[in-house]
Amino acid sequence: MVSKGEETRERILDRAMALASVVGLERLTIGDLARETGMSKSGLFAHFASKEDLQLKILETARERFIRDVFAPALRATRGEGRIRALFERWLAWERGRVGGCPFVEASYELDDRPGPVRDALAVAQGEWVDALAKAVEIAMDEGQFRGDVDPRQFAYEMYGIFLAYHLYHRLLEAEDAADRARAAFDQLVSASR
Amino acid sequence: MVSKGEETRERILDRAMALASVVGLERLTIGDLARETGMSKSGLFAHFASKEDLQLKILETARERFIRDVFAPALRATRGEGRIRALFERWLAWERGRVGGCPFVEASYELDDRPGPVRDALAVAQGEWVDALAKAVEIAMDEGQFRGDVDPRQFAYEMYGIFLAYHLYHRLLEAEDAADRARAAFDQLVSASR
Repeated sequence: MVSKGEETRERILDRAMALASVVGLERLTIGDLARETGMSKSGLFAHFASKEDLQLKILETARERFIRDVFAPALRATRGEGRIRALFERWLAWERGRVGGCPFVEASYELDDRPGPVRDALAVAQGEWVDALAKAVEIAMDEGQFRGDVDPRQFAYEMYGIFLAYHLYHRLLEAEDAADRARAAFDQLVSASR
Repeated sequence: MVSKGEETRERILDRAMALASVVGLERLTIGDLARETGMSKSGLFAHFASKEDLQLKILETARERFIRDVFAPALRATRGEGRIRALFERWLAWERGRVGGCPFVEASYELDDRPGPVRDALAVAQGEWVDALAKAVEIAMDEGQFRGDVDPRQFAYEMYGIFLAYHLYHRLLEAEDAADRARAAFDQLVSASR
């Protein structure tokens, strides 16, 4: 059972995550969040001890949402190529469906040169995602759908690149064919692995 | 001939560009830049009328440096595949050689949801670079090195994705094989176009 306090905290974190995707994790202040949620700063400090604590909890929330919306549903797809395709499509939908785009991507380029616990937590989360992609490729190899000489980590690297270009073309360049380009690149990557 | 004032302005802009790549264009203040350069804030306001003016001039400086260090030298390489390879290698070196990585990449994910003249200038610069990559692919097709059914804009999209993944793997994940992965993906893209 979810308590009322827990519910409030979740609601705040969803708003904070959206705000951070637009203004950046570093620029987001407790004051901004107070304005955005209509809560008092002292009320927010009851939930988050410091700005760093807030940043870490935003990342943890993003991770939970990502698992709920992208990873877990894709695990229900057939093992192998079907699952990799589900991971890819849900990843694109995750970017499209969020104000500000993918919070991990925004944070990655923002924090890459800013050492500390937030950057560390982000690198761990990104590393886990790369591992999950590589694992899905290994399964497609085990199932005999992908060739035995495919490098799962190289596949994950290229798949990530296709997603990052999609994010750039979609958000900054506002290219109408961003999703078509992403899918064409991904299909090519999958075909070359069969 | 470059005047003393012009020289000072260039020196400030180089520092500002490096600082913006680390903290972000939006978080960079005239006060930060004063501390970084040892100049007074009023001295800086003589060069930059506003924060937005500073941001625009940082982007323009980044564009000049990019042309000088990446684009112009690659134009001296042989037309066709040799030039595309030179563009790619110099692009990787541009990322590696800069405190904070590529200022365009950092700014793109930072500003994509922040409408205004700075975002517009950035989108124009990024669009020009995508055009230049596609143009280099067209030349390789004209030279008969790439197949006639290659889509130059799809090639540019995928090449950009490989670069973005390199930036992420190198800066955030600190992957030692980031450059090897990037080159393997790029070689694959080139081979598939021959």
